[in-house]
Amino acid sequence: MSGPVEDADAVTDSANGDSCVVYHIGELVVGPSRDGSGETPLEVREDAAIAAVDGEVVAVGSSEDVTREYPPENADTAIDADGRAVVPGFVDPHTHAVFAGDRSDEFEAKLRGKEYQEILAEGGGILRTVRAVREASDDQLVANLTGHLETMLAHGTTTVEVKSGYGLDAETELRQLEAIDRANATQPVDLVATFMGAHAVPDGRETDGYVDEVVEEQLPAVAEQGVAEFCDVFCEEGVFDVEQSRRVLEAGIEYGLTPKVHAEEFTRLGGAGLAADLGAASADHLLHANGDDVEALCEAGVVPVLLPGTAFGLGEAYADARAFLEAGAPVALATDFNPNCHSRSMEFVQTLGAVEMGMTPAEALLASTRNAALSLELEDGTGTLREGAPADAVVLEAPSYVHLAYRFDTSAVDAVLKGGEVVAE
Amino acid sequence: MSGPVEDADAVTDSANGDSCVVYHIGELVVGPSRDGSGETPLEVREDAAIAAVDGEVVAVGSSEDVTREYPPENADTAIDADGRAVVPGFVDPHTHAVFAGDRSDEFEAKLRGKEYQEILAEGGGILRTVRAVREASDDQLVANLTGHLETMLAHGTTTVEVKSGYGLDAETELRQLEAIDRANATQPVDLVATFMGAHAVPDGRETDGYVDEVVEEQLPAVAEQGVAEFCDVFCEEGVFDVEQSRRVLEAGIEYGLTPKVHAEEFTRLGGAGLAADLGAASADHLLHANGDDVEALCEAGVVPVLLPGTAFGLGEAYADARAFLEAGAPVALATDFNPNCHSRSMEFVQTLGAVEMGMTPAEALLASTRNAALSLELEDGTGTLREGAPADAVVLEAPSYVHLAYRFDTSAVDAVLKGGEVVAE
Repeated sequence: MSGPVEDADAVTDSANGDSCVVYHIGELVVGPSRDGSGETPLEVREDAAIAAVDGEVVAVGSSEDVTREYPPENADTAIDADGRAVVPGFVDPHTHAVFAGDRSDEFEAKLRGKEYQEILAEGGGILRTVRAVREASDDQLVANLTGHLETMLAHGTTTVEVKSGYGLDAETELRQLEAIDRANATQPVDLVATFMGAHAVPDGRETDGYVDEVVEEQLPAVAEQGVAEFCDVFCEEGVFDVEQSRRVLEAGIEYGLTPKVHAEEFTRLGGAGLAADLGAASADHLLHANGDDVEALCEAGVVPVLLPGTAFGLGEAYADARAFLEAGAPVALATDFNPNCHSRSMEFVQTLGAVEMGMTPAEALLASTRNAALSLELEDGTGTLREGAPADAVVLEAPSYVHLAYRFDTSAVDAVLKGGEVVAE
Repeated sequence: MSGPVEDADAVTDSANGDSCVVYHIGELVVGPSRDGSGETPLEVREDAAIAAVDGEVVAVGSSEDVTREYPPENADTAIDADGRAVVPGFVDPHTHAVFAGDRSDEFEAKLRGKEYQEILAEGGGILRTVRAVREASDDQLVANLTGHLETMLAHGTTTVEVKSGYGLDAETELRQLEAIDRANATQPVDLVATFMGAHAVPDGRETDGYVDEVVEEQLPAVAEQGVAEFCDVFCEEGVFDVEQSRRVLEAGIEYGLTPKVHAEEFTRLGGAGLAADLGAASADHLLHANGDDVEALCEAGVVPVLLPGTAFGLGEAYADARAFLEAGAPVALATDFNPNCHSRSMEFVQTLGAVEMGMTPAEALLASTRNAALSLELEDGTGTLREGAPADAVVLEAPSYVHLAYRFDTSAVDAVLKGGEVVAE
């Protein structure tokens, strides 16, 4: 899009390991402010630069200082940001991005007033996606996921959590997780896999019997396969109740999978309390969470992951982001990308956070970077641009990160760096 | 993005005039259904093709019939749509896209609770943009506008109305219109220019005196320059009242400029009635229009142009699209792109129309194509893909136009044709 990025080609040079320097950054968002004080929750530097070697940030400072130590002309990749803003790559910590089939017709039917129950009765909804995924080949699942990741990357997302949960049998759940593993190896976005056999109850099955299958058959196979890091469950009225959800998550813990919970989305059933009780990494959705839930999650250190795209698409009330922020919670945002919420851009999620949920652009950015990484227990600095962190960064077309929320509908991304290499522009 | 479009390069051939054929279209949206009946207001064909010569559609029909008459191998541009959907290029009939400066900080301040009046008192708001535009060079204005048009085109918009109104003096209003004229000549998007000297009252001026200037000084100069086709006014409490608005628009009519009205945006002041009375091409915004306004506009044949991005960004209630649709009005949608509404995608406008305003995806698409063209009095078939119309078309990545509304935040556009040539992909 702009000259400076292309200049990088002219200055390739071999050093010890791949090296990268981005300089003349008008506004560099390093990460959360260290003491939480100040006008924004972000640490922001002006006229800054960062340098990376072997995919890791090795220097952050003034443009003058950093380029003295790491001259652009010696770097494999050199970007003159020319006053533009640079922010950490976005982390999308809640997606169902490995699926097949097209449910846009259901979106249209709902707009015409058709009830979701009616769509379900006609064989639509999640179980339609389950059929499509069971019928899709492994290659098709990988290709579909890879296409979605390309779009996400173009919007600045460099790390994505992806859940299984459209298989609902051991074989297909494993095939979904395998697709995540294969896509992780073949494209730049880092993937984090979550097993979610308890996403819905398969057609014609009784819930407790299906929970038995998840616990006794699916989980052991998933653990043996070794791709999944988290175990998630849809704790919701008519899906899995709190005790059934607890059974799944406790079994997951036995197998080394950290719990996550789809909690209080359509009703307040108790998923947030369960997440707090089990020390889950995150509780997600939380549209119907109340003050007790906020307190319980904060005390237990569970990250609230809010999904404004879902509320937008379904016309639901948004989660109360301000209640969590005022309680000091590290609020995270995610797209919830799935056939029922065709949302792949963490830029738009930040716009919704600001416009619809009363977050400042800084809070929305922090929620889309470091706090999202916390919800995935990424402890290596992901979601920040501090020394030692992965050199995952987004160069904006704009002078300020505020443009991420300010541009409602078009991208503010100029170039995306993953591990210090330009992977989208 | 896909193979088929690139194939076009392989089959260039010189014929009589530039020729183009798009075939194997899974779902072709031709335009409005001819009798208004049917399940959607659109005429949709399956397994279709279109051919164009010299920028004009010359054949629409089954893929087999059209390719027999216009073989892809003989066409200058040939696209195998491979089952994907093709729709008319979008028409964005209300923008303020020629400006300078950055007001993202005001967006942030408003999210923090700052009142617009406070921002105005500190020298912000529209008059800040006026200062920036007066200070910008002609080349800068053209470059800014051209950059925005490039983004619009990538989202499928092939015709854009652009208003002046950030000059508020004859010299700068003319410079804005000149910038629109220059941009129109140097990039693919067709521009329609609207003079809007009565967009705000300049700092320190008394309103009636400024209206005198618009009528006696600006309008004659604008008419002599000959770029503008329409004359618009911000009929709003505290800006221009109905009588002042009438003076401006009637003078515009004298100079051959067709009226448009910013009507009933923040209050119901009477702009819709004025638009009906003067036979305006459109009345725009209409958030506070009531049943009488709907009726008056319908009877007078004034196109209601609704701007959901503005309501989204400002947290206002949306205009009552269903009331206009049920009254039979040809509802149009537009972005209202301006520094206070950073919205450039007619795809997102269709999503908002569907999700927030109760329009079906078909109604939203019609509002973004043929009805938008009606609001600009484009009588040459713009906004349709019928024989004789400009060959302005969007090839989607998806099998159905429903994806335009269904994808909340990322583009469904694969390739954009303007006058039968691929101008974005």
